[in-house]
Parts: sequence; C-alpha cells; structure tokens
Amino acid sequence: MNMPSSLPVVRLKPKANARAIRHGFPWVYDNELVTDRRTKGLEAGALAILEDDKRQPLGLVATNSNSRIFCRMLDRDVDAVIDQAWFAAKISRAHEMRQRLYDTPFYRLIHAEADGLPGVVVDRFGDTVVVQPNAAWSEILLEPLVAALVEVTGVSTVIKNGSGRARGLEGLEDDSSVMVGTAPDAPVPVVMNGATYMADLTGGQKTGLFYDQRPNHGFAAKLCKDAKVLDVFSHVGGFSLAALAGGAAEATAVDGSAAALALAEAGAAAAGVADRFATRKGDAFDVLTALNEEGATFDVVICDPPAFAPSKPALEKGLRAYERVARLAAPLVAEGGYLGLCSCSHAADVARFRGASLRGIGRAGRQAQLLHTGFAGPDHPLMPQLAESGYLKSLFFRL
Amino acid sequence: MNMPSSLPVVRLKPKANARAIRHGFPWVYDNELVTDRRTKGLEAGALAILEDDKRQPLGLVATNSNSRIFCRMLDRDVDAVIDQAWFAAKISRAHEMRQRLYDTPFYRLIHAEADGLPGVVVDRFGDTVVVQPNAAWSEILLEPLVAALVEVTGVSTVIKNGSGRARGLEGLEDDSSVMVGTAPDAPVPVVMNGATYMADLTGGQKTGLFYDQRPNHGFAAKLCKDAKVLDVFSHVGGFSLAALAGGAAEATAVDGSAAALALAEAGAAAAGVADRFATRKGDAFDVLTALNEEGATFDVVICDPPAFAPSKPALEKGLRAYERVARLAAPLVAEGGYLGLCSCSHAADVARFRGASLRGIGRAGRQAQLLHTGFAGPDHPLMPQLAESGYLKSLFFRL
Repeated sequence: MNMPSSLPVVRLKPKANARAIRHGFPWVYDNELVTDRRTKGLEAGALAILEDDKRQPLGLVATNSNSRIFCRMLDRDVDAVIDQAWFAAKISRAHEMRQRLYDTPFYRLIHAEADGLPGVVVDRFGDTVVVQPNAAWSEILLEPLVAALVEVTGVSTVIKNGSGRARGLEGLEDDSSVMVGTAPDAPVPVVMNGATYMADLTGGQKTGLFYDQRPNHGFAAKLCKDAKVLDVFSHVGGFSLAALAGGAAEATAVDGSAAALALAEAGAAAAGVADRFATRKGDAFDVLTALNEEGATFDVVICDPPAFAPSKPALEKGLRAYERVARLAAPLVAEGGYLGLCSCSHAADVARFRGASLRGIGRAGRQAQLLHTGFAGPDHPLMPQLAESGYLKSLFFRL
Repeated sequence: MNMPSSLPVVRLKPKANARAIRHGFPWVYDNELVTDRRTKGLEAGALAILEDDKRQPLGLVATNSNSRIFCRMLDRDVDAVIDQAWFAAKISRAHEMRQRLYDTPFYRLIHAEADGLPGVVVDRFGDTVVVQPNAAWSEILLEPLVAALVEVTGVSTVIKNGSGRARGLEGLEDDSSVMVGTAPDAPVPVVMNGATYMADLTGGQKTGLFYDQRPNHGFAAKLCKDAKVLDVFSHVGGFSLAALAGGAAEATAVDGSAAALALAEAGAAAAGVADRFATRKGDAFDVLTALNEEGATFDVVICDPPAFAPSKPALEKGLRAYERVARLAAPLVAEGGYLGLCSCSHAADVARFRGASLRGIGRAGRQAQLLHTGFAGPDHPLMPQLAESGYLKSLFFRL
C-alpha cells in the first residue's frame, strides 16, 4: 500500500473541469494543473495523486511534464498499488472479452485508455504479443506489465515495439527489443475472414498487422463473390486477400511499399489464391490516375489510405485528400458496383468523412447508395469520453 | 413515351433549393412549390414534370397535395415511362445486391427512396413478398409494381400490407390484401444468425419480422456464449433467439405483446432451444423496475425499444426515455457484463442517442467501454441525401 505521503500531489486549477474527470474523462492537460516547481520537477512517468482545487483526491495518475497530456488516470483508488497484480487484473478483464469474441488468439488485447492502461497497446499473434508502451509511465513500469501479460495469456514471446509518433509526443525515444522468448524469424501467418495475412512482427509498420479493419474486411468479402476487385493503399493486402477468400474472380493490390506488397503476395500464396492476385507498386494517386486514363473498371474498389487528417489543423487539407480519393476511385467502379472508402483520421468524424466522400463521388458524376458504415472491431473498444478514439470509419457505397 | 404535353408541370419557387435536387435530394416540400389552382387540383399520386423557377426540367416526380412531401423524384429522365419494365429495372438492381449479400431469399428487397422507389417497402420471405405502398403514387401504380416483383423474383405470393403511420401522412387508408397467390396459413420460419424466427406475414406488426437488426443480432450472439441474457422489448425474440443460437445458457424475452412472445416461443421450439428460453409479459419499464427490486443480474442485457423520438418535436422527451432505459438496465448487468441499447428513432442521431445512453449508465453508477456501434443491415441502404433515413442505431457497451 502507498502511504498517503508516499506519492507527490498534483492539483487542478479552479477553472479545470473536475466534474468531467469525476465522470470518467481520463486526462488532465498541462494548462489545467497548478504547476509549481515541484510539479514541473516530476520525472516523466512519475505516479502522483490528483486532487481538485479543493484538495479532494480524484485518483492515482501517471504524470508527464513533457506532454500536453500531463496526467493520465490509472486508478480512482488513490491507495492502488501499480504492480504486476494490478496489471494482471486489467489484462484479465480485457482478455476475457477477446476470448469471448474470437475463436483464435489473434486480436488487439489492450487498446490503451479504453482497456484501463493509458497509452499502452498490446496486439496478440498466437504465442507472441507485441507491446507498444506509448506513454512514459508504461515505459517505467514495463517489467510488471510484461510479467502480467505472460501470467494472464501464457504467451512465450513478448516483443517491445518502441517506435512511432505517439512516443515522440511523450518525449520517449525509439527503443524496440525482444523482452521474453525469441522473436519469430519469419512473418507469422494470421487467419482472418478466411484469408491468410503475413505479419512481420519485428520489421513491419506498427505491430506488423492492423486488426482494426477485420469487420470491414469481412463486409467487403461478402460483396466480392466473382468480382474484379481493386484494393488501393493495400498495405499487406487487407481488403484484397479477404476479397479473394470471399470468392473474388481477381484482385489487384496497390501500395507504395514493396515490402508490404511482398507480404501480401506471401499471404496470397499461403492461402492458395496467388493465381487470382496481382500487385501494382506505386503512389496510389498516380496509380488511380493511370487506371482512369486506361479506362479500367472494377466491380469493387476499396481505398484505405493513411490518416490524411491526423490532427485538427490538418482537417481541411485531409478532407480534400479524401474527396480526391473518392473522385479518382468512383469512375473506376462499374455501374451497379461497389466503392469502399476508409479513414483512420482522428480529426475527421464520420459525418465529415462521409461528406467529403460524397463530394468526390458527385464530382465524378456518380450517384451513390450508402450500404454500410463500419468502425474498428470490438477488440478496439472506445472510452466514451474520448470520442476521438473512434478514429476508424469505413463506408461502403453502391454506385 | 410520354408526349411533352402529356404530364402536368409543377414548378419550384425561386427560393427553393433546386441545387440540392439536382445533387440528388429526392423530395420537394409543399412550401417550395408554386401552388396554383391546377397544382392544388392534382390527384394524390399523380405524376408530373418538376421544373425549376427558370422552367428547366429537373425530372419526373410523383405528387401528393395531401402530403408535406409534395413531390418525390421518380426519374431524372422526364421522358421515362413508369411501367412494369421501369419497375423491373429498379427491382432487378436491388435484387442483384441482396442476392450477392444473402445466402437465402430472406431480406428487405426494396428500401424506398434508397432503392429508387420512393415510399415503397418490400420485404421478402422466400416465395412470398410483402409490399408496403406507403406513398400515394405507388398505390395507383401497384399493379405494374407487383407484376414486376413477380417477374424479377419469381415469388408465388404477394401480400399487400397497407397499414401504418406512413400511409396516414400520405392520406392513404388502411387496405391490406393478398394480391398474388395464397397467403401462408401459419407463421413462416425465417433463419437468421442460426436462430429461427416465426414471421406472421398477415397479422404481425409491419411485415411481421424486422430484418434491420440482423447484423446487430449477429454481434450480440457472439457476446452471449454461456451467458444469462435478458432481451427487453423483445418483439418476436430478435436478440434472445440469436443469443441462444450463439450458445447462451439461458435467455429471457420481455415484451408487452402476448402475440409477439408466442411467436418467440414458437421460434425457440423450432430451433430446439425452448428449454433455455423464458418469456415475461409486461410493460418493459415495469419489468425492468421489478427486476431491479429483485436484485436480478444478467451477463448480457439488450434493450430494443420502439421509437421514442420518431420526430423532431418528440426528441427531448424521447432522449429522456432512452436515458431511463439505460438507467434501469445498467444495474441488471453483472460486473464485466454487456449492455446493448438500440434506437429506431429518426430524430435521435447516433451522437445524441449515445449521450442519452451514457447519461443513464452514469446515473446507474456504472462506467462503460463502447465495443460496437451498429446500424441497419445493407438490405436497408441509405440515400446519403436523407441522413434521417439512418434511423437504426445499436450500441454495445461493456460495464
């Protein structure tokens, strides 16, 4: 047990929204805190007791004076001890839900704040988990976190992926390593929606494979029977390999990364669908333009670009980029065919993204029905207080 | 071909939004039209040519001077002939998409404006279709519509369901009949998500079974393995029978309609799960209150109430009713269990409904993760210009 005096105290300014925090909002921004010398001197990742301006305790928080998000709520109980048992309780709860929803142990196991571990992302690939400690406190407490992961899941390998933009915002350096066991020496096959994806757990983007689009891949696969399919911004073949598993006549994956396309080809080979699969390396806008010039058409076109509007200042520019994707993709869709458009931008909510997509479709001279609006799968739960954590949107139109 | 002079002309006022109509908005309200004596004298359901204020033709419309929606766009081509072939083209296009998405012929075949037949709803139950001609024009042109339905789908029975609120808004009287073939003399078994539902095609609410919740039933079923489940506002057992098909230990359906519960029981018997199924007849709010007093808990609770906010004036009151459902249901969910909350209110968008649900959960003293946001299935497509047609929302929380 922490003695009452054993942790430093950080205090809200009177103007800060203590009510929102009491109602579950998990963060305190730096301008909401009384920042005296002692507060400023807190080591990045240090634990503290958060009090309101009347000195009433609100909970146990992780602090980071290097980050705009100064405090992240760890536990409403100020006497909580953040040790292996504490981590194991959080992980067990998250694990129970994934075991219920997925037949095989391939899923996002911990989705940060929404699973009670702020800034921590854990993806599971069978006997291997990949941990992203993207907040300073989790870097400091990585040992009990990793021990709890092994305790709860029984995995034999734990890889730390310490790279990416989120760590930079916390002032953390890139630092990746194998923490438990031995990293697989080849990409790991992952089966989703009947397709086989090859996940490169040590060399790939983020954790090597994105689980978030799984339900949208599944929806697309149902549209694709006997269809000619184009998968733009394909990464390792998310939509195209699902389409082939769903009975597509042929699928073409377009991506700028030769490494991603090589993994897509390996996945197609592993699933025995390589004879119906093609890749085209290049800038997606260039390829879309070229396909328009060639007069190519497809029964199903799906575009899953990177985040064009990752933050509010980038919103208008990002929406124009989404509109451009829609305008270039719509003419490639045969009459009566289907167009899937995705956004993983925090700043573009579903209404704005839908509006940009429809403007692009309209400028291409096409009319659309909206068949399906999908989000990330349930292994990416949302904290309701963080609307922005619903970053992924997927819209399927019939033209 | 209609001679240019063969159809009356209706004209937009200068202030009306001709641009929106050119961009696909399908309606003209009565206050947007120049209403001279001839326009007022149009028979309800009469076809006309819509012109903008500069006398440029916008399309062929169906009119109804009894309705706030005076014009519904039928065809951008003013020379279109609205005959059996015209209906068959619209129905074929809609049919192709459903055949692609569904393994068996049980789905909504025509979803009104979004499928190009304004105000017309057609549900298919194998060899039987149920038609709801909810706009005056479709009542007048019912014969070619029905002939086209038989031509495209090959069904042997066509039932006209001429009841409900939508017809009243058009000034149409209740009028139901069997138009082709012989109505089934017993409820029809419909298999969805592994569950069997009994659809009463002549006596039930609307068309006897709602297809719109199918994907949300499917999501719920995955949560329900080995679970004790409560299905409130169950109608014919939508969520509870899916839960049992998904392996629920037991499920209880609550509804105010003895007829709906009898169909739910028949469905449970047909699927061989009657031993795990119970019903409780009564007002849902009363039953929720009683269960709270009994201290009952369930692993999964799902509430799918009728539209509490069917129109904008009813919005605030409706949101309070949704909040009350959430406040009464949340305490019945075991720690770590799941709460599904649905709304079929046009006026309450997903953000407002989510807010009301979270207020109710918060007032019950519970914290929530949001796992899944679902809408109606793709056999209920949306016309993007009619945002309100996205009436169904389904939220799944973990508490």
